[in-house]
Amino acid sequence: MQKNFERLATDSHSNARRGRLTTAHGEIDTPAFMPVGTQGSVKGVSPRELHELNAQIVLGNTYHLFVRPGLDVLKHFGGLHNFMNWDGPILTDSGGYQIFSLAKLRKLTEQGVEFQNHIDGARAFISPEIAMEIQTLLGSDIAMALDECVPYPCEYDYAAQSAEMTTRWAKRCREWKRRKDEMAKPELADSATRRRADSMLFGIVQGGTFEDLRKESAQAIVDLNFDGYAIGGVSVGEPEEEMMRAVEWAEPLLPGNKPRYAMGLGTPPQLLELIARGMDMFDCVLPTRLARNGTAFTTAGTINLKNAEFILDKNPIEENCACDACREFSRGYIRHLVKAEEILGLRLITLHNLHRSSGRRSATSLPLTYPLLAALRAARRSTTNRSYSRCRDSSSGCRRRDDGCTVARVLGASFDDNTLPRSRVTRNDGPKTVCAAVAPRHTSNFGFTRRSSASSHGRQAAISREFGF
Amino acid sequence: MQKNFERLATDSHSNARRGRLTTAHGEIDTPAFMPVGTQGSVKGVSPRELHELNAQIVLGNTYHLFVRPGLDVLKHFGGLHNFMNWDGPILTDSGGYQIFSLAKLRKLTEQGVEFQNHIDGARAFISPEIAMEIQTLLGSDIAMALDECVPYPCEYDYAAQSAEMTTRWAKRCREWKRRKDEMAKPELADSATRRRADSMLFGIVQGGTFEDLRKESAQAIVDLNFDGYAIGGVSVGEPEEEMMRAVEWAEPLLPGNKPRYAMGLGTPPQLLELIARGMDMFDCVLPTRLARNGTAFTTAGTINLKNAEFILDKNPIEENCACDACREFSRGYIRHLVKAEEILGLRLITLHNLHRSSGRRSATSLPLTYPLLAALRAARRSTTNRSYSRCRDSSSGCRRRDDGCTVARVLGASFDDNTLPRSRVTRNDGPKTVCAAVAPRHTSNFGFTRRSSASSHGRQAAISREFGF
Repeated sequence: MQKNFERLATDSHSNARRGRLTTAHGEIDTPAFMPVGTQGSVKGVSPRELHELNAQIVLGNTYHLFVRPGLDVLKHFGGLHNFMNWDGPILTDSGGYQIFSLAKLRKLTEQGVEFQNHIDGARAFISPEIAMEIQTLLGSDIAMALDECVPYPCEYDYAAQSAEMTTRWAKRCREWKRRKDEMAKPELADSATRRRADSMLFGIVQGGTFEDLRKESAQAIVDLNFDGYAIGGVSVGEPEEEMMRAVEWAEPLLPGNKPRYAMGLGTPPQLLELIARGMDMFDCVLPTRLARNGTAFTTAGTINLKNAEFILDKNPIEENCACDACREFSRGYIRHLVKAEEILGLRLITLHNLHRSSGRRSATSLPLTYPLLAALRAARRSTTNRSYSRCRDSSSGCRRRDDGCTVARVLGASFDDNTLPRSRVTRNDGPKTVCAAVAPRHTSNFGFTRRSSASSHGRQAAISREFGF
Repeated sequence: MQKNFERLATDSHSNARRGRLTTAHGEIDTPAFMPVGTQGSVKGVSPRELHELNAQIVLGNTYHLFVRPGLDVLKHFGGLHNFMNWDGPILTDSGGYQIFSLAKLRKLTEQGVEFQNHIDGARAFISPEIAMEIQTLLGSDIAMALDECVPYPCEYDYAAQSAEMTTRWAKRCREWKRRKDEMAKPELADSATRRRADSMLFGIVQGGTFEDLRKESAQAIVDLNFDGYAIGGVSVGEPEEEMMRAVEWAEPLLPGNKPRYAMGLGTPPQLLELIARGMDMFDCVLPTRLARNGTAFTTAGTINLKNAEFILDKNPIEENCACDACREFSRGYIRHLVKAEEILGLRLITLHNLHRSSGRRSATSLPLTYPLLAALRAARRSTTNRSYSRCRDSSSGCRRRDDGCTVARVLGASFDDNTLPRSRVTRNDGPKTVCAAVAPRHTSNFGFTRRSSASSHGRQAAISREFGF
């Protein structure tokens, strides 16, 4: 089944690739960041603004929508698209993440998971089949198989048993979908049934932090033949090295002609790392969640606009940023709004952060844009007055060549001077020149950096600074 | 001094009028509702959305902006317009209302008022002259003289002494402004000084709930010759009859060629009543404050979208409403957002409520629009299938004639059938036909009505229902 995904380019120097995923509600150019709309709304943002941000797809959450407003309501409104007035693609998480995040409120068995829901304590049972029913009712374009997302740390034996159960659950989801698809044979089906059949089902790889379990899980899930594959069980509190290893272990086993989704990952520094590791789709609540706390993404890392240093700052959050917040408002004003707890403050920072993550269609001749493209190009612009030599850091695994950054090239960005921004960073073992673009294997910390302490964060800071994240 | 205000039409049957107020940042068609942006932001709404709502002017607050972000910041940013990126007119309240609302945090003397500010307890002294300085620094297009807003109830002696002090303060403000204007003589002044001179200063009538004090205050303030006149000391917890009386007592003493501003008043039912009483400008926090609690204005009165009755409601907040919330979203979805505490929910209701209050430029051939116009026209549309006879309620003081509603006519609205919506309401003295448009003298309750109990609210409900408020 390759009907839904088309690879448009693959990098020979890294695992980065670009592609196009076709859903019942439109095409998605990958790599793609997916804003999170857990409860049927990307927090603080209207669907119209999402379109203006060129968000290509949004996430919904099976468990949360099941609990509130409930299936009767969503059925009455004809699904989630109609309910929230979003006409683009929707991916729905299956509820597996809530097995982790609401661990104290649920009981897990082979059959499924029973939640004591977090709103009114009523019981809500979700089995693999029910998760599929719900996602079908929501009208999800991309449904996720129900999985158990294990915590970090997690003992080997538990992770092994859990991954095996996740595989059995995946099989049940796959079987449910197969029966539905059969019922929707063209000669039998009405258009609504057909449309449901057009929806995709992704399987989820688990296995905790253990190489053999990750690989076994990946192989077992791939053997079930899904429309796409996700790396789950990451972003549960583990160090970012563990996230990256989980991706690296599974990736070689995933078929290249299917989309790959790194679940819950997508901070600006992570995006580059994950794309270089062959991932296509990403979601992360941090662009919106941090915005509500006053934190904005900039080329120099994150800044918290509550800080006193911005009181008199007439600059936009980010110089040369094309988002509405940056085109119309100063840091000083936004700081005032955040301090005064004015809603407009968090709205503006949310727009900016999503703009940086989601990207916009380029005004250039490039036919497609990607989450990184605008930032890559901005990085080039911001560095044209500096001089860069070719990367000499063989120890970093950098594969940059005369044709420029491998990631950038794959993504369609062109650098006039055929060179990449580089930076000199100080680590414990002394000054070292690294290429900021690829070389993921040697990176020790991909997390967020605060601008003020950027210099202490080594390569991650370099990536943030040089690539506009 | 008639330079700033032009009367375009005056009703011979009521005190309603329409006009145009010219400020340094643009013209305001009156009657005009002014959205409240206390801290430099109309809560939940961006300046661009305010323009889309055709908001003609916004309010700022001297005390709040003085406390946060503070004058140094506002001076650094070149005034409030630049700071909040609003290029339309701004009216600033003087801080007089905070003498009432922050009564426990302030000490009042003839010299001025010392606040222990509500943010960090630091002391902030505001005299009439300082209030003028601050409003000048803010770049206010319409400054208000500092007044003492007395509470309700208030003893006669206190109200009398307070009104006299308000007059003395008004005189000090007037004098401060006169000196500034002299300094800004054309041959001497630079453009910034000229611009400040273009700003207007309104005096405020006080006097509590006492007829003689209200009249004395009005006369004394008018004798000082301001650019416009406000009725203050209303909306402090008194019954609405008292508000209306305060307006009625002062109004005959106010010169007809100056704008009149009913401070803090502007719920939808109040607007019609106040316009009929000769008021031109209004402000009210309720459209935005109630929205944040889930309450929306409709033709049938207010509704709270949290109520279970809206769970499955596919209708917009208001049928035929042209606001973004009503064009794009259902009551059921907005209810879900409000219940789930999603920011988009309060944003949508705020937009709707401000749309109803602020009005939009009409798509018709009418050159001007007014807060009431859209609603009046909507009311006519909503009643075209009903039959109305001419008003026979002589006891209500209704003066409706063959040429249609006096208020509507003055405002430029034309009714094809030359009749006005009327309604039959039940009061204690039995069924009675009243004209819903004017006849303010006989109204006993102009406040809000909940839709579910509309029938018990007599005339006010009729006004709400028939006029789309």
